[in-house]
Amino acid sequence: MASMISTDPSFSATARLLPFTRFSNGVVSLRRFVGPLHVGLLNPTFPRTLSLNSIRSSRFITAAMATEQSAKVIDGKSVAKQIREEISAEVLKMKDAIGVVPGLAVILVGDRKDSATYVRNKKKACESVGINSFEVHLPEDASEQEVLKSISDFNDDPSVHGILVQLPLPSHMDEQNILNAVTIEKDVDGFHPLNIGRLAMRGREPLFVPCTPKGCIELLHRYGVDIKGKRAVVIGRSNIVGMPAALLLQREDATVSIVHSRTKNPEEITRQADIIISAVGQPNMVRGSWIKPGAVVIDVGINPVEDASSPRGYRLVGDVCYEEACKIAAAVTPVPGGVGPMTIAMLLSNTLSSAKRTHNIK
Amino acid sequence: MASMISTDPSFSATARLLPFTRFSNGVVSLRRFVGPLHVGLLNPTFPRTLSLNSIRSSRFITAAMATEQSAKVIDGKSVAKQIREEISAEVLKMKDAIGVVPGLAVILVGDRKDSATYVRNKKKACESVGINSFEVHLPEDASEQEVLKSISDFNDDPSVHGILVQLPLPSHMDEQNILNAVTIEKDVDGFHPLNIGRLAMRGREPLFVPCTPKGCIELLHRYGVDIKGKRAVVIGRSNIVGMPAALLLQREDATVSIVHSRTKNPEEITRQADIIISAVGQPNMVRGSWIKPGAVVIDVGINPVEDASSPRGYRLVGDVCYEEACKIAAAVTPVPGGVGPMTIAMLLSNTLSSAKRTHNIK
Repeated sequence: MASMISTDPSFSATARLLPFTRFSNGVVSLRRFVGPLHVGLLNPTFPRTLSLNSIRSSRFITAAMATEQSAKVIDGKSVAKQIREEISAEVLKMKDAIGVVPGLAVILVGDRKDSATYVRNKKKACESVGINSFEVHLPEDASEQEVLKSISDFNDDPSVHGILVQLPLPSHMDEQNILNAVTIEKDVDGFHPLNIGRLAMRGREPLFVPCTPKGCIELLHRYGVDIKGKRAVVIGRSNIVGMPAALLLQREDATVSIVHSRTKNPEEITRQADIIISAVGQPNMVRGSWIKPGAVVIDVGINPVEDASSPRGYRLVGDVCYEEACKIAAAVTPVPGGVGPMTIAMLLSNTLSSAKRTHNIK
Repeated sequence: MASMISTDPSFSATARLLPFTRFSNGVVSLRRFVGPLHVGLLNPTFPRTLSLNSIRSSRFITAAMATEQSAKVIDGKSVAKQIREEISAEVLKMKDAIGVVPGLAVILVGDRKDSATYVRNKKKACESVGINSFEVHLPEDASEQEVLKSISDFNDDPSVHGILVQLPLPSHMDEQNILNAVTIEKDVDGFHPLNIGRLAMRGREPLFVPCTPKGCIELLHRYGVDIKGKRAVVIGRSNIVGMPAALLLQREDATVSIVHSRTKNPEEITRQADIIISAVGQPNMVRGSWIKPGAVVIDVGINPVEDASSPRGYRLVGDVCYEEACKIAAAVTPVPGGVGPMTIAMLLSNTLSSAKRTHNIK
């Protein structure tokens, strides 16, 4: 059965290098996770900017805490809900102030059911926060020229602040060429090499940060996890999650190591980490023995495994063996309900940021 | 006394974030290094592409070798000389085939002596391999507009394949703005965020790789050091050396960790590495105890330390305590004569590549 990572499926051509095929985006099929060790749910109504004092308070996780044998659950679903409420308030404020509503455009080509579902969910998410959504649906046999024309129209449309091309595109199209046509000012996916370059460089700021890794870091922030000076291990080096997640952690002064398929001793290296972000798409690959006591674990993987007892015949598990992680980590994201819901929240956040930047609003 | 790293001094604005000030570019003041443990000099006439068999031969270094208590010296001066000979041959071949000679343009503003020396050395290096060099020298009080005009002229000039703006620029100029004016097709320094982004992304290729980190990797290649699957630690995360060096190592399937000023246990992490690249500008910071027996050490630092016995009153040392490294590493670059000479060789290489790309020559 195919595995994936909980990133938005409108990912770039580079995602094809990953050993995963798309299965579910973790947003569509979210359900409340009820695991045997699902304890200590935090109230995610944390301030966006944390003071040192609040970080020190007991509501927050420190990588060295883990005094008990059960990890705190990092509740991505609740955090994402809160972020959407914040976005909603900002959208309203912007509308009141200057009469502008942020807009996200999605281009869908062909009739793939999964793609249609993702697009529908993005539309719904936009509606829920008051962001305008635009959609162009072209037939499977549309020409590349038609897709480029739609992109060009959205590039020129001042009511559109973000553009997504739903992937995969039909095989007769040059995906790279099409994605490159999206103006960098509206590339809310953040996959443009210029954005990645700026993300990598000190003293530069990317226009957009890719949604899934941004969601991972946002979870760490909202749960008060100290990143500066901490050892961080990112498992997986994909263009859409692993690599930008490593760059983000480095921007926050973590000491980062990237573990990948060619790494000879992934367990040993991972066990040194205060913060683990796993994005490989291998069910239960990261066992308890990989985790340092008190580490914080962000699990980006969403892997379907056969489960006859489930009505769907499968259930979703992460890259991390959740039960084992719960016994050793200070905090861990569940799958589903961890990183998944954050991805679409960050997409909305990027769209709002784009609108604010366009209209010079802080 | 100021410290630096052995990178070409025409570096971008981002370099200003580094804790180093410029002192010497390691190319200007090269001299034969004669250290007490300067043993086992290799003949650097290695094939550019190494077969597995040749890698296995005793002429090459493996990270696990170090059976003796004295490291091989990675002779950057000899390798750079060889590369210049190769470039020279290619330049001649290109001229014979299509009548085109690669060209490098340097823009110098003001009368800083060190800048004038660097420019003169680049010019000499170009001459030595048959690359045309162009120079514009503007007065200190030139306007930004005049600099931009010179860049624009070189951008449009088909006989120019690489453009360098010698830094630092006078303080009344917007360095970022000026550097951004160099067309990416001629950005032989490779510092453009688009190049860095492509370097970071799997499946993408940068137009140019920054000269100093490219030189480090070239040394590893030429000395047959296996990178794939190896633990690599890069010390320093500058835009011009550390960060791109880490990206390059990762592209070659090393497992990379980046150690920096916020890292709590740099010694412990560095000691895990099979390959160390140090680019921090701290004299003798990396002691023998930081180095795993048999590791390969690339020292990018060029730090002047007071030395009353020297006619100049100082001598140059690396980030790595050379004498201690020699006792534990499998191979180590000396300072000077290690990475330094490689930087300008890679600048020539980038200029040649640019000309070849322009004229579609493999």
